Amino acid sequence: MLKKCGKRSVRFENRLTILATASVVGPKEGEGPLAAYFDRVAQDQLFDEDTWEKAESKFLRTAMETAIAKAGARKEEIDYVISGDLLNQSIGSTFGVRELGIPFFGIFGACSTFGEGMTLAAMLIDGGFGEKILFGASSHFCAAERLFRLPLDMGAQTAPTSSRTVTGAGAGVLVMAGDGPYVTYATTGKIVDLGVKDASNMGAAMAPAAADTLVSHFVDTGREPGYYDVIATGDLGYVGRDILLKLMKEEGYDLTANHTDCGIEIFDRESQDTKAGGSGCACSAATFSGYFFNKLKNNQIGRILLVPTGALLSTTSTQQGESIPCVAHAVAIEQRIEARG
Amino acid sequence: MLKKCGKRSVRFENRLTILATASVVGPKEGEGPLAAYFDRVAQDQLFDEDTWEKAESKFLRTAMETAIAKAGARKEEIDYVISGDLLNQSIGSTFGVRELGIPFFGIFGACSTFGEGMTLAAMLIDGGFGEKILFGASSHFCAAERLFRLPLDMGAQTAPTSSRTVTGAGAGVLVMAGDGPYVTYATTGKIVDLGVKDASNMGAAMAPAAADTLVSHFVDTGREPGYYDVIATGDLGYVGRDILLKLMKEEGYDLTANHTDCGIEIFDRESQDTKAGGSGCACSAATFSGYFFNKLKNNQIGRILLVPTGALLSTTSTQQGESIPCVAHAVAIEQRIEARG
Repeated sequence: MLKKCGKRSVRFENRLTILATASVVGPKEGEGPLAAYFDRVAQDQLFDEDTWEKAESKFLRTAMETAIAKAGARKEEIDYVISGDLLNQSIGSTFGVRELGIPFFGIFGACSTFGEGMTLAAMLIDGGFGEKILFGASSHFCAAERLFRLPLDMGAQTAPTSSRTVTGAGAGVLVMAGDGPYVTYATTGKIVDLGVKDASNMGAAMAPAAADTLVSHFVDTGREPGYYDVIATGDLGYVGRDILLKLMKEEGYDLTANHTDCGIEIFDRESQDTKAGGSGCACSAATFSGYFFNKLKNNQIGRILLVPTGALLSTTSTQQGESIPCVAHAVAIEQRIEARG
Repeated sequence: MLKKCGKRSVRFENRLTILATASVVGPKEGEGPLAAYFDRVAQDQLFDEDTWEKAESKFLRTAMETAIAKAGARKEEIDYVISGDLLNQSIGSTFGVRELGIPFFGIFGACSTFGEGMTLAAMLIDGGFGEKILFGASSHFCAAERLFRLPLDMGAQTAPTSSRTVTGAGAGVLVMAGDGPYVTYATTGKIVDLGVKDASNMGAAMAPAAADTLVSHFVDTGREPGYYDVIATGDLGYVGRDILLKLMKEEGYDLTANHTDCGIEIFDRESQDTKAGGSGCACSAATFSGYFFNKLKNNQIGRILLVPTGALLSTTSTQQGESIPCVAHAVAIEQRIEARG
């Protein structure tokens, strides 16, 4: 039976339950407003490893092992691990999951990766291909700066529109049946590229992709923005958020009451000097796995639409004069499953 | 209902049919033994683009558009496109699928990507999340040399154990019901890393991962190697093939009669000076989409087990002294669906 809902969304049939999540972050994230929600805060960016890339893998592995433990599961019970990151050839994940010994699907959606992973985990479990699936994503400020921008040692100034890559990882364990929170719907993103070429303003590049996915989600599901207690995009930051709200208003949707962005939540803009906000795969991964999942479990929110956003560029594509293709994946997570017609 | 078969395999319930495939390759591949099977051979490595990376995206886009056309479908009918490649941040795919306007799942499995894509496409369709899914993978000799090895202009010698990255792409369209060839089983790889650090000998690094997945497939399904007319690994080449056959023999499986490797098939070792053979995401993607799929359609083979293999390293991980994590994904494609108990 086809589980499609409208053109681009799917509705899950089972009571797909996120059994547990875990988040492990770096020191700056641990000094931010969400500090109390993270499972673990590393003392420094190296997390006892000798390179930033190895540290990123350790953030992911630690988050995943913690999520498995919180779910009361054993590694051997996990059917698949689905994860990805921003590093070249996804080494954050490939080395991060290497020791787990779990069948592995590597994914790439830049900073939308956590949404892509949650969507695929839900599809695979709802489709009957596993009982427990682990999903996650990671990023690392120092590794990303070296890879995408400038050596940290240069101490270069950043643009006011630029964001700060979150150091850390988030992971979750999804199972076929349980008492929630439930993954109920997913709307998968198309690539949207309106021609933005400024790699220091990812928020502006990604906002149209987020708007495209959000409009599709509302059209497909018949839901209004107000249905959700929180609509949380991934890492649009302050600049991208303003553009998103404007684009959505033009489409007839008012998101001002319940929209936030993980990149806005994770840092304190003033005291932490994080410009446009947080970004990176770990921005939505750690903010959801730490903060929002906790609020769901504690009944402080009942329905959230998580929309991780990704800028699918590389230094090579930028050097070759290309614009920035973007994507956003929306996943609805709810305390209750609505009655079905 | 759980569709798992043994510990790591799944059996698909529907008559999942590969409606069409397409392959587009570079000039060297077009001079090789499989020349007649490819849909299109580019005149040169640039394929009318101004950079190798843009050319790679064009190879993928052309293969995908050709597969859609051969399937008698329209882009608007495709529910998802699933693809990946070797380039940093998967720009072969993100720019390759940008204009298609189809919901996109980016994946990363290095040269195993085509197997991962076919597996996920099958799971998503069998699970009811779409009716038509497009999957593909690409690689490019010149882009890969620049990225992973040495500038081509240096004219450096290559090691006898090294392989040549295939320039090109392969893609397929999978649908929920049809007259075959059918995707019947998938066995998903775990990461296997036995400590090989020589990036000029990927075959040796990947062979244990291929063996691990193959043994799991035979144990899970109860099939013997002889069940398949062809067992085709992705890009182990001559060196990796010898290791694989030995490892499998130690496990009690004799693959000598029906094993080949896409990296062995795609080039003529002697006349084309391709050392250990072909490699890259496009090696299994183009060889399957061109050669093996044609043989299936023409009833020259009835059952194939395709096992794309991937080395999940990056230049950064190598420079940091890491060994090479590897993975292999097996997918069974058959002319007939066996009776079920």
